[in-house]
Amino acid sequence: MNALKQHIKDNFNIVFNDDRILIEAFTHASYANDHRHLVDEPIKNLERLEFLGDAVIELFVSDYLFNQFKELPEGQLTRLRASIVRAESLAELATECQLAQFIRLGKGEEKMGGRQRPALLCDVFEAFVGAIYQDQGVESVRRFLRQVMFSKVEQNSFSYDTDYKTALQEFMQQSGVVNIEYTVLETSGPDHDREFTVEVSIEGDYHGVGMGKSKKLAEQKAAKQALEALSS
Amino acid sequence: MNALKQHIKDNFNIVFNDDRILIEAFTHASYANDHRHLVDEPIKNLERLEFLGDAVIELFVSDYLFNQFKELPEGQLTRLRASIVRAESLAELATECQLAQFIRLGKGEEKMGGRQRPALLCDVFEAFVGAIYQDQGVESVRRFLRQVMFSKVEQNSFSYDTDYKTALQEFMQQSGVVNIEYTVLETSGPDHDREFTVEVSIEGDYHGVGMGKSKKLAEQKAAKQALEALSS
Repeated sequence: MNALKQHIKDNFNIVFNDDRILIEAFTHASYANDHRHLVDEPIKNLERLEFLGDAVIELFVSDYLFNQFKELPEGQLTRLRASIVRAESLAELATECQLAQFIRLGKGEEKMGGRQRPALLCDVFEAFVGAIYQDQGVESVRRFLRQVMFSKVEQNSFSYDTDYKTALQEFMQQSGVVNIEYTVLETSGPDHDREFTVEVSIEGDYHGVGMGKSKKLAEQKAAKQALEALSS
Repeated sequence: MNALKQHIKDNFNIVFNDDRILIEAFTHASYANDHRHLVDEPIKNLERLEFLGDAVIELFVSDYLFNQFKELPEGQLTRLRASIVRAESLAELATECQLAQFIRLGKGEEKMGGRQRPALLCDVFEAFVGAIYQDQGVESVRRFLRQVMFSKVEQNSFSYDTDYKTALQEFMQQSGVVNIEYTVLETSGPDHDREFTVEVSIEGDYHGVGMGKSKKLAEQKAAKQALEALSS
């Protein structure tokens, strides 16, 4: 428990007011079940906090996307959100936050390799977020998710890499325009650290430019710039 | 627009900082589509705010249930949440809030009776909640939902009427106990305003009592009291 508290404090700068909530978030049902005959009152497992945390993540991701990508239509926001909150992504975040070592697991579940199971790691991540929300409040959750999750969206880690290009195309098709071209203007830097500059033209006219570590990323940025100019 | 602003102020004590967000929440895609050739920039419809509002409602309902029903296990919280946030429930809330009259609809949609369509009313309710969240913040949303939604949960309007009894039964079955009995102790009041008093006994021993306008409601309250006593 002390190791967990120290880990949470050192890595996320969070000190729980009520340690019981933190323990609850790291107690798997299999552990509570193994130990239910050893104690007077039932041991709480993480399921209720997971219920809460799931909704907390959904809202904060939605809020973030809504305000960060003002040009994206609802359909693409929904697809992007789904790619971020899917179980595999949340399990990865649990691993990156090094949460697995602190989970209280039942013996059977431990033997079956439960501690590495993505579905279980996802549950723990959701319960942990639920615990932060319940114990610390809205702003603390936002800060935590910004640190571990939103920073990855900005680094293009999630699979939204076609969204701006698609958005620009859908936007232009409303006016019947379909001729959108991307041209690499420049490639600079050494082989292991290339930087691409890409221009986007619509019906032959320049509409935006973007730079990035890959051609794809530079195209995305050019499309984003064009979209912003067109919709402002 | 002024009528809408007045309506929102009079009924929910909310004054928007940015009227454009309020207008967006009441603009259906069919209206935006009808008018897109008449104006320079595209008219925003409610879909993005609906995306946001859907997640806002999900979180605040989860938060409310999590803290209001501390004895309910996750499975029942999930079922209860589903009954509250389902489209038909939200459409009813839109009607009770008298929102339909203010929706900007396309001509075709209007002719088809869109203004009374539950799916459309649900979308508008979600977009309106999204608009409150975006323009006014967390506490304003909580207040609004408490006024129009949570008060109904407390009045037992949603179909969670078997939850405490089921929860008590599931709780007791963990110890192998199955003999739970509900007995009407008293019926008082005139025919049109009956009040029932119900006792719950477990293995023949008194465990709780509840009063309510129906036998069912009184049983629920008795089960709640028993659960609270047993799990405290």
